[in-house]
Formats: sequence, structure tokens, C-alpha cells
Amino acid sequence: MITLEEINQISVVSPSKIVMLVIDGLGGLPDPKTGKTELETAHTSNFDSLAENGACGLIDPVSPGVTPGSGPGHLALFGYDPLRFTIGRGVLEALGIGFELKETDVAARGNFCTVDDDGVITDRRAGRITTDKCAELCEMLSQIKLEGVELFALPVKEHRFLFVMRGEELAAEVNDTDPQRIGVAPNMALATESQAKNTAHIVNEFVDEVQEILARHQPANMILLRGFSKLPDIPSMGEIYKLKPAAIACYPMYKGLARLVGMKVFNAENGIEEELKILADCYSEHDFFYIHVKESDSAGEDGDFSRKVKVIERVDYALPQLLKLTPEVIVVTGDHSTPALLKGHSWHPVPILLYSQWCRRDKAREFSESACASGGLGRLRGTDIMLVAMANALKLTKFGA
Amino acid sequence: MITLEEINQISVVSPSKIVMLVIDGLGGLPDPKTGKTELETAHTSNFDSLAENGACGLIDPVSPGVTPGSGPGHLALFGYDPLRFTIGRGVLEALGIGFELKETDVAARGNFCTVDDDGVITDRRAGRITTDKCAELCEMLSQIKLEGVELFALPVKEHRFLFVMRGEELAAEVNDTDPQRIGVAPNMALATESQAKNTAHIVNEFVDEVQEILARHQPANMILLRGFSKLPDIPSMGEIYKLKPAAIACYPMYKGLARLVGMKVFNAENGIEEELKILADCYSEHDFFYIHVKESDSAGEDGDFSRKVKVIERVDYALPQLLKLTPEVIVVTGDHSTPALLKGHSWHPVPILLYSQWCRRDKAREFSESACASGGLGRLRGTDIMLVAMANALKLTKFGA
Repeated sequence: MITLEEINQISVVSPSKIVMLVIDGLGGLPDPKTGKTELETAHTSNFDSLAENGACGLIDPVSPGVTPGSGPGHLALFGYDPLRFTIGRGVLEALGIGFELKETDVAARGNFCTVDDDGVITDRRAGRITTDKCAELCEMLSQIKLEGVELFALPVKEHRFLFVMRGEELAAEVNDTDPQRIGVAPNMALATESQAKNTAHIVNEFVDEVQEILARHQPANMILLRGFSKLPDIPSMGEIYKLKPAAIACYPMYKGLARLVGMKVFNAENGIEEELKILADCYSEHDFFYIHVKESDSAGEDGDFSRKVKVIERVDYALPQLLKLTPEVIVVTGDHSTPALLKGHSWHPVPILLYSQWCRRDKAREFSESACASGGLGRLRGTDIMLVAMANALKLTKFGA
Repeated sequence: MITLEEINQISVVSPSKIVMLVIDGLGGLPDPKTGKTELETAHTSNFDSLAENGACGLIDPVSPGVTPGSGPGHLALFGYDPLRFTIGRGVLEALGIGFELKETDVAARGNFCTVDDDGVITDRRAGRITTDKCAELCEMLSQIKLEGVELFALPVKEHRFLFVMRGEELAAEVNDTDPQRIGVAPNMALATESQAKNTAHIVNEFVDEVQEILARHQPANMILLRGFSKLPDIPSMGEIYKLKPAAIACYPMYKGLARLVGMKVFNAENGIEEELKILADCYSEHDFFYIHVKESDSAGEDGDFSRKVKVIERVDYALPQLLKLTPEVIVVTGDHSTPALLKGHSWHPVPILLYSQWCRRDKAREFSESACASGGLGRLRGTDIMLVAMANALKLTKFGA
């Protein structure tokens, strides 16, 4: 596999623009009644015409058979081998809300949850309390003082919050207290490597105090922590590709991820139409644009086939706004599949559509899993996408003499 | 490439079952008269209907263009990178006959062969002597005593035997004495690395004594040794995948290989029907089943196109026995191609058919090389198969947050 250093050696600055439209959880599975996936069910005349003039394929973000989390899925899309660069969930949450982590900080993703009188988890999301309620509870948690460490609890969205420990010699090798299922008690924090013993001790002390404070705050009467992590050492997209990249997204995690790889982040709260308006506004300032659509994944995770279809159709309907900017390269894909039938991320390869003047048009006449399966791009690794996009934007020179 | 350690981190125990049916040497080349391969010529209505409801593809067990031996081909099928894990032929033979190798033992595969008065090999298989004759000769060879080393010669099948040296500081870096062709004399054993000098010396002493003993036992008047090797350090499938794997096979080598990766081995002497009966008998005790069909490869190696067709048809005919167990995942593939036209293993990618409820059905309507070439699984590395099978059995969780 070509290294980031080698990519850097062949990448060149040029005025051409690349737009990468990521429809989260895009890939699906067929409705048994119709034999068609979400993407195949959706009316997508704009995508179909782009597919007709472009090239299609399938991507494995991490590896065939491996279901990517959103972090690894996105890292792959941006050209970073997700098996080499691992980003903890805690760090992602911190980046997502713009919390400036120091190198020595340890961050974790928190959930407010519900436990019964025996301490057994009955709802991992505390009935999805409001973000306001979450902020109020975080304010209470922030009052906790422990010797030798500074603690932060910050609201993210609904039941989700960010927990950060700041101090000397903290280590992230601590297991999740979140067992990721109901019917059991939360886990104790334990050091998975010896240098994290003190950190694990701090976590347990914190959780003990939290439990006392939240006792009368049902349904949010307990917390679950997972993804203890420190900032990874990751080169920026500017360094590797010599791009000036911009991200346009709504959800914290995706903005955080984009920030981590050096993108300028634009916030869009009102869907694809607003995202494409922002794209037009900042179009002259950047040469790479990552646009994130979250609702397709949420619909898939909820098992709502027809809502996922509608999200895809809404994006398709808005596409002319993007097309009129005439970017040299347009990539439409997802960070992983989220078939409504499986109600979660899956291992199925993700459809990809690439349009450029130079893409060697294939026989695909529509944007669908089945057209992509026999498309001209073939089956690519996730990390190949940036290379193919850069190449089609004429931003890569020859490798070797 | 995802590591075995990373796979271990995402694998989970579940009640679902995976059956991997390996039709040895499955892939072929078209008969010039009909334009159809062995698999395409065979009437395989059961495979075809499975293909119609499943997904097809092609696999490269080691690498595109590389012809796999049976060891590497099978290791890849079980998810072990055959370029990282190498298993000597001697070790395979030992495992196959249930000989318990110690870590310090050096094993080799032996052939009884025929040499003429000048010591030139005229038949590498000594006219395929009977297994009884082989046992009788091995008994004689076992009488040989050499200082500081214990020697074993054990019959395998027909002209094949196992040679094992047991002692202090033995090393396996010794070249084959088998030149793998007739018309020349056997090679002297030479150390390819200096620590194996004494071992090579022992081999030569042994061969000298053997030659005296066998002098009057034409056609088996000499031996050829190859694949000097020690037990490799290889994690079990139980450790990596958290599976309880079973192997159902007839030939020693495949049983040996299965034992090496921690499978419970069931012996079946009477073809696919008996293998599938054993499958039914042990079905509740295991969750992964490797079933090996040897005759397709033998027919291919003999250049017998129509016999290979018949073997495939016999397996297809027996398939309903397997189907009625309703395993969650069925994989039908080979460890390599053995086109009858080439009379040997080949580099051609191997057709694979995967059936599961979650496999994202493709357009393949039959199980054939050409349908596989445009199938939804695409072109996979051999080591991807276990991941895809595990994923389809819902035995893998998300990678990363």
C-alpha cells in the first residue's frame, strides 16, 4: 500500500476542486418484498445521470467483512489507513464539540443512563434526555473535585456527554465502564496496562461521586463511559495532499474528525440544502470539500427503510445546487453501510460514484449497489478513494521516473 | 491488512453456524471444444440455486498470479496469511497421521522411489507401492540407529511416508533431497543455514543406511525427502474467532492442517455423503465446519476433465443433506484451481459462493467461474473469506467507534 509520505511526494497544488459527498450509512440490503435496497428504491435521477456520466464501484472502508465504526470509516475516506490510525471515541467527542484537548488529557464518551435499585442498567440512554437536561447534569458533575486532576463534563447531544481528565501522567489504557448492553451493572474501570492504574482509580472515584449526585435524577441516575483516549498523532490533509480542505457537517463527531485531519469546519444545522449553500459560499476558499449527511445512517439504525429512502431522495433533489458549481471531481459514497434490515452499521461494501471529466465512464446507468458491483471502479479499499479523487482532479504526478 | 489480534477483538460467540465446503482444486479452465470449465460443464442445480440466493466472487488464496500449494491455500481459507504462516510439508504429514511432534522435532515428507544402477531416479513414486508395503519398509527403516538422535519412519499412504528426527539442537534449514523430477540423482542434504549443518549430516547418514537396506527392494530401492520443518507457532481458530471448529476430511494432510489450527478432526473415508452424515452428527457440538473434498483435485491433476466434472456433480447431488441443517452461512469454494488442462494446481482465482440471509444477493444465477467474475463479492483475498463468513454469521462487531 502506498504510504502517506509517498502520496505527499506525488501530490501537487492545482486549482481543481474535489467535492466528497458522504451519505452516512449509504449502503443497504434489499427489502425482501421488492428485492431493492434503500438506494435502489429511492428515485435519484440526479445521481443516476451522474453515474451514467461517471464511474461506479464498491468500497471496503476497513476490510471485506469488517463493519467500520464511523471513525475508521471516515479516516479511510480521507485516505488514512484506519488500521494504522486509531482514534478513541472520547477524543472524537471532544473534537466534535470544539473542546481543545491537551496532549496529556484523557477523554471518554459518556452516556447518561438509567439503572434500577440493584444498579442494573435498564436504559443505556436514559430515555434520550434533552440536550438542555444533559447540560444541567454536566454542570453538576463538573463540581466534583478529585485530588491531582482537573475534571470536565460537557454536554454533547441528548444523553451524550464528554468526560475529560486533565493532569500529570494520565494514561488512556482503561476499559469501558459501558458494557454496551442492558441487564447488567456498569463495569468497574480497570487499567489494561499498568501505567493506567491511577487513571482507572480516578475514573472509579469519579463514577462513585456521580452516582451519589444523580441518585434522585431518574431516568438519568447513572453514567457509562467508553473510549478512553488521548489525541493521536496524525498528519493533516494539507500536509499529505497539499489541499485546503473544508468540512460541512452538522453532527459533532464528524466535525471533530474533520478538524483532526486539518479541515476547516463549517457548521450546518438544517440539512443538505444549507450544507450546499455553505459550499457555494466557501467554494473559492478551498479545493476539497467533505459534506456529511447524517440522517441516512440514523434512519438505517432505526430500521426505518422508507425514511432512509427519503433522506437519499432529499440529497438527490438538492444535488443540482452542487452541480452548478461544476467541481472537477465529485465523489458520492458512504463511510459504511447501514442496512435498515440490520438496524446498524454493517460490513457490506459501500457504493461509490465518481464523476470527473477523466474518470473513464463505465456501463453503470444508475447509482445502486448492483450497478456498483459491476462498475468500472471495481472494488476498492476505502483508502484508495482519495488517490482516485486526487488523480481525477489531476492533482497527482507520476510515481517514479 | 487486519491482524489476527484485531479480528480477535471484534469476534463474538453466537449460536450461528458456518459451513465451509472446500472442493479441492475447484477452479478450472474451459474445455476448448465447449468453452466451459469443469464447474460450468457440471450439472449443479443445487449450487446454482444457492448462487441465485447468495453472492459469488473470485478469490486469490495467496496473491493474483501465485499458484498456491495445498497448505497455503488452506491456511488462507482459514484466515491465516499464508505469506506469514508457513508450514513445512513434513509437519503437515506428521499432523495428518496423528504423529505428535515435539517442538524440537524436525519432520520431512518421504517418498519411496526407484533409482537405476547409476543411482538416477526413474520413478519418484516407486510405482505407487501399496500402503502395506510402505508400512513394511518403514518398519525396516525404523531400525536404523544414529548417535544422538531418535529416528522415526512412518507410513502415510502408498509410497508416502513420514520421516522425523528427534534430538537436541536440530534445525529444519535443510534442502530437499527430492529433486522433484526423474533422470537425475537425489540431492545431498545441505544446510541452508549454518545451525542446520549437523541435521543435514544426520539426514545424509540416514539416507546412506536406507540405500543399503533397500538395495534389494526394487521398485522401492531409494527414498526422497522434502519439506524439512518444525511445528510453526500458530494461534488457533478458537483463539482468533472464538469458534468451536470441526474438520471433516479423508486425506491426512487436510486433517493435519485442520488440527494445526485447532479444529476437532472427524475422519470420513467414503466421500461427501459420509462427510455430510458426520456433519449432521456433530452439528450441535460445533459452530464452524470445514468439509474437504479431495477427488476434484486428484482428477484435475490427472488431467481428467470429465472425472472432475463428475466429482463436482456428486457433491452438488449430496448438497441437500447439508442444506437441511440450515446453517446460517454456507461457503463453497476451493483452496486453489486445478484445471484438468494444466494437470496441476494453478494461479487462476478460485470461484466462491457465499450464502446467508444477509449476504446482499447479487446477479449470479449459477455457480461458475464466469458468474463469479462479475459477482457481488468481487475479487477477494483468500484471507478475507473468514471475515466475510464471520460477518454474515453476525459473529463480528464493529471495528472502532
